[in-house]
Amino acid sequence: MSFNYPNGKKYVRLDQEKKAPVKIKKNDGYGNRGMTLEEDLNESNEYYRSRKMAVIHKKPTPIQIVQVDYPKRSAAVIKEAYFKLASTTDYNGVYKGKYIDFEAKETENPTSFPLKNFHQHQITHMEEVMNQGGICFVIIRFSRFDEVYLLEARHMLGFWDRMMSGGRKSITREEIIHNGYLIPLGFHPRIDYIKILDNLLPLY
Amino acid sequence: MSFNYPNGKKYVRLDQEKKAPVKIKKNDGYGNRGMTLEEDLNESNEYYRSRKMAVIHKKPTPIQIVQVDYPKRSAAVIKEAYFKLASTTDYNGVYKGKYIDFEAKETENPTSFPLKNFHQHQITHMEEVMNQGGICFVIIRFSRFDEVYLLEARHMLGFWDRMMSGGRKSITREEIIHNGYLIPLGFHPRIDYIKILDNLLPLY
Repeated sequence: MSFNYPNGKKYVRLDQEKKAPVKIKKNDGYGNRGMTLEEDLNESNEYYRSRKMAVIHKKPTPIQIVQVDYPKRSAAVIKEAYFKLASTTDYNGVYKGKYIDFEAKETENPTSFPLKNFHQHQITHMEEVMNQGGICFVIIRFSRFDEVYLLEARHMLGFWDRMMSGGRKSITREEIIHNGYLIPLGFHPRIDYIKILDNLLPLY
Repeated sequence: MSFNYPNGKKYVRLDQEKKAPVKIKKNDGYGNRGMTLEEDLNESNEYYRSRKMAVIHKKPTPIQIVQVDYPKRSAAVIKEAYFKLASTTDYNGVYKGKYIDFEAKETENPTSFPLKNFHQHQITHMEEVMNQGGICFVIIRFSRFDEVYLLEARHMLGFWDRMMSGGRKSITREEIIHNGYLIPLGFHPRIDYIKILDNLLPLY
C-alpha cells in the first residue's frame, strides 16, 4: 500500500530494517528519484531477472520469532518477533554460472564511507565467499552526489583490516574512486552493476 | 531456547514456516536422531563452512511486517507480521566458484513424493537458475526409510510439467531412485550432499 502527502510527496514509513526513520529524499537527478538504494537495486535485479540476464535476489530480513497466533480460518499472525543481525550479506545469486554476493550501503557523508555500516559477521562472510571463488563486492552510494560505486571485497577487507589495526574507521571517497568502479545509473535498470561485472568476470 | 518433556523427548514447537504441527520423530537410526531435515542441513552447511569446503546458507523466512514498536532503550519489537510465500528456494551459496541453489523437503509417504510441497514460484526460480548456469536441485527425504536423495532441477521440472499437463501429482520413489542420487548420511556432516556435487560439477 502506498499513499502520498497532500503536496504529492510520497509517504515513507519508518524503515523497519534499519530501525531508524528514513529521510524523504529530494528529487535531485535522473538516477535518484526519491528511491532508497534498496529499491533501486531491487528494480535493477528485477530488470536483469525478467531479461534472463542474471538471477539475483535480496535475502529476507532475518527475524527471531517468539510468538505466533493461529486464528481459525485465517493466516497465522506473528505477535512478537525481533530483528536479528544478518550472518551474511543481503544480496546473492547467479550470473553466467558464477556465484555473485554483495552488500549495499549508502551514506550522506560527502567525503568518506563509515565502516560502522558493516559488522564483523558480514566481513567474515565476504572472506569465505572470496576463498570459495565467488564474486563478492559492496555497492556504496554517496547520496549527496548520487554516485554509486562497486568495490570488490578484497579492497573492502583491506580497509577493514586497516581499521582493526588502529587505522581510520572509514574509507575516503578518493580511495573508493581509486579502487572501485563507478556504476552507470539510468532509468531502467537504475543501477547497472552487471556492466562492471562483465569486466571483472574474466579475472575470477 | 529448548526444553524436554519429562520423558526426555524434545519439545518441538509448531513449525512456523509450514504453519502446521511438526511430528516428533522417533530415534530410529544413525542419520536421523529426531532432527528435522532443516536441522540436518544446517548442521551439514555449518560443517562445510567451518572446513572452508563451501559457503551455503538457508535464507531467512520471508515475513511481511505490519507493525513495529520502538520502546525506549530496548530492541524494536515486531508486533504484527505475516508469513509470505518465498519467491525463491530456501538454500543457496557457492561451491568452487559455482552457484548452488536448492530446496529441501521431506515426506512421510513411503511410496511417492507429493508435488504439492512445491509452488509455481519456486519452480520458475529453479528454471531461471538452470538457464543462468547455476547448479540447482532438490533434496528429498523419505523419512520412513531415512533415505535422502538429490534430484537435479531438470528432472524436477520434468515431473512438474507432467503434473501440469494432467499427469500424476507426485514423483514415485522409484522415479527418484532412478533419476536422483542417494546422499550418504553420517554423523558429521549428517547429509553429505557435496559428495554428489563433486560428481555433477564437471557436467555444469
